[in-house]
Amino acid sequence: MPPTITAFERSPDGGKGLARDTRARWALEEAGQPYQVRLVSFTAMKQPAHLALQPFGQIPTYQEGDLALFETGAIVLHIADRHSGLLPIEANARARAIAWMFAALNTVEPPILEREQTAYVVGGKPWLQELLPILHDRIRARLSQLSARLGDADWLDGGFSAGDLMMVSVLLRLQSSSLLDDYPNLAAYVARGEARPAYKRAFAAQLLVNAG
Amino acid sequence: MPPTITAFERSPDGGKGLARDTRARWALEEAGQPYQVRLVSFTAMKQPAHLALQPFGQIPTYQEGDLALFETGAIVLHIADRHSGLLPIEANARARAIAWMFAALNTVEPPILEREQTAYVVGGKPWLQELLPILHDRIRARLSQLSARLGDADWLDGGFSAGDLMMVSVLLRLQSSSLLDDYPNLAAYVARGEARPAYKRAFAAQLLVNAG
Repeated sequence: MPPTITAFERSPDGGKGLARDTRARWALEEAGQPYQVRLVSFTAMKQPAHLALQPFGQIPTYQEGDLALFETGAIVLHIADRHSGLLPIEANARARAIAWMFAALNTVEPPILEREQTAYVVGGKPWLQELLPILHDRIRARLSQLSARLGDADWLDGGFSAGDLMMVSVLLRLQSSSLLDDYPNLAAYVARGEARPAYKRAFAAQLLVNAG
Repeated sequence: MPPTITAFERSPDGGKGLARDTRARWALEEAGQPYQVRLVSFTAMKQPAHLALQPFGQIPTYQEGDLALFETGAIVLHIADRHSGLLPIEANARARAIAWMFAALNTVEPPILEREQTAYVVGGKPWLQELLPILHDRIRARLSQLSARLGDADWLDGGFSAGDLMMVSVLLRLQSSSLLDDYPNLAAYVARGEARPAYKRAFAAQLLVNAG
């Protein structure tokens, strides 16, 4: 029985691939693993049945036999742990790739998400125009550091890993802004991620749902 | 050779234990592992030698033989992976404990940190009083969900795990606010974490540095 992940019945981004099921799909595609998808409506996501699987009412979840998992980072790590293609075999390199997963999720993504959510929630307030530059500076600080570390390498630490999968996924959230423009090596890094056949399959699969 | 972690020469919180080295110390104490600490000044943290270890100029880092790691989540997971006491042995329970680590770092901590950083950066602006309630609501949404999931259990999923270590560490950031007051089960959960002998040793060790 292949694992089942959940995804939005209708993604808020209309199929741009930014919903987090794309990350789980990408990991499964890199690992060459078939999977099933169960679509969940916004209403159903806040109901007890889904909250039992995902206490914060989000997607994706991951079910495989007796195992029910939530949190995209944990799902991608679980897939990477059990199949080849997403983590180096050598123990130290493996630990470093996992560090980049955490860096993507706990250091780089929070200010990026904060900007999205604040712009949405604060909406019409006149002071949004004073707040946004503060939030942009916080993002730029992280991008500068990441850009300096990546340099002219293809991936963050040796070959492509789950750390790159997560970091590219996080940076993709910036494509609708101009924030990546000052960091050509990061823009090229994101493009390398998008060019991977596994990413393309994951993207096409989520688009099929959301363009339907 | 025991591993070496880095910590602030002088923590911005003056020894309240909220700097992230406390999380690494706590994990090492739960695992019964000795460790060494190298203190880093704010100036040194932004210099090339430290950035080579920690691309975002933060603490803690973790060095052990040939391995150099950054990101607290990765450091705690690495310790938990190699020693008993922080992760269940059974594979599914282990994956779920790791999911709680990611939930703490990617779902619960970001709005909490956002509130701290915004209050600091936005400072004197009159519209801070309009923004703070928005940020508080975002925190409360996560606390409500977490509280509902925890219920009257002692820990998030069976026995104490690295997931609880991380979640308690994240919630400790709220102790200086009144935000935990509406969630007695979460306040009791945090108190259970603080009561663990390993946490007490970690807290005392960081206090010794910062009260010096």
